[in-house]
Amino acid sequence: MMIKQDRFMREAFELAREAVENGDHPFGALLVKDGEVALTAVNTVNTNHDHTRHAELNLVSQAMRQFDADFLADCTLYTSTEPCVMCAGAIYWAGITAVTYGCSAQTLQQIAGDDFVIPCRQVFAQSPRPITVVGPILEAEGAAIHKRFWPAQL
Amino acid sequence: MMIKQDRFMREAFELAREAVENGDHPFGALLVKDGEVALTAVNTVNTNHDHTRHAELNLVSQAMRQFDADFLADCTLYTSTEPCVMCAGAIYWAGITAVTYGCSAQTLQQIAGDDFVIPCRQVFAQSPRPITVVGPILEAEGAAIHKRFWPAQL
Repeated sequence: MMIKQDRFMREAFELAREAVENGDHPFGALLVKDGEVALTAVNTVNTNHDHTRHAELNLVSQAMRQFDADFLADCTLYTSTEPCVMCAGAIYWAGITAVTYGCSAQTLQQIAGDDFVIPCRQVFAQSPRPITVVGPILEAEGAAIHKRFWPAQL
Repeated sequence: MMIKQDRFMREAFELAREAVENGDHPFGALLVKDGEVALTAVNTVNTNHDHTRHAELNLVSQAMRQFDADFLADCTLYTSTEPCVMCAGAIYWAGITAVTYGCSAQTLQQIAGDDFVIPCRQVFAQSPRPITVVGPILEAEGAAIHKRFWPAQL
């Protein structure tokens, strides 16, 4: 189980690197159902000229158009970095009940500078439906992607 | 000023009623710059099969593709009902600094039943940039739209 978890997280990191190659921010996310990847998404903030186009929001938005509520309730969302408050809200609305993240929002903030940081557990704590959170995992690998990206932007 | 504020809010209520006519949920939002409506949006959750398609997220997403950051920093977002946590996050990412809402999230919860209610002021309090919130205003008119809609869905 742990090995699979690491494999999915490394796939999310790979998606984050792909996003950078596309000219976007280093974030990737994927949806796992029954041990298989059902869907992947990357950040498209720059290519779409739209700061709501985070990897998790893109993923969830696509997932709802493609899968039904029962399917989504059985999925785990893996994301290269802890979801922001907007994406945490979107994950709730999608009915997804499990989230695993790599790099924490706090670590991202230390690398990328002051921003809107609300730990996702604090958001999910107010959900009437339990949402299980695992993370940070493989944080040094996730943080390394941000360390390469953000200092060059600032 | 107060008269204009009421006029914009009633336009948001009208958009919420339009959303219902389209087969969606009763929410509408608009962006005001220098006393003029720059953009409007409605909830499209059902028509898009996507529960992230709240009126405010639709509005902000479209606004970023259309206007630059300086323009958005000078806008007020009017919304028929207090923004949820996802939309509050989106409003932050868009760089919008003023929000006026009609019906409160708490009143909506009393009408529509248990859901994910985090007051938007609680979310914005953690923003490194101040976001001014006005509301509820004309709440009875906003609540009436929800009272007609939600009991029929439950």
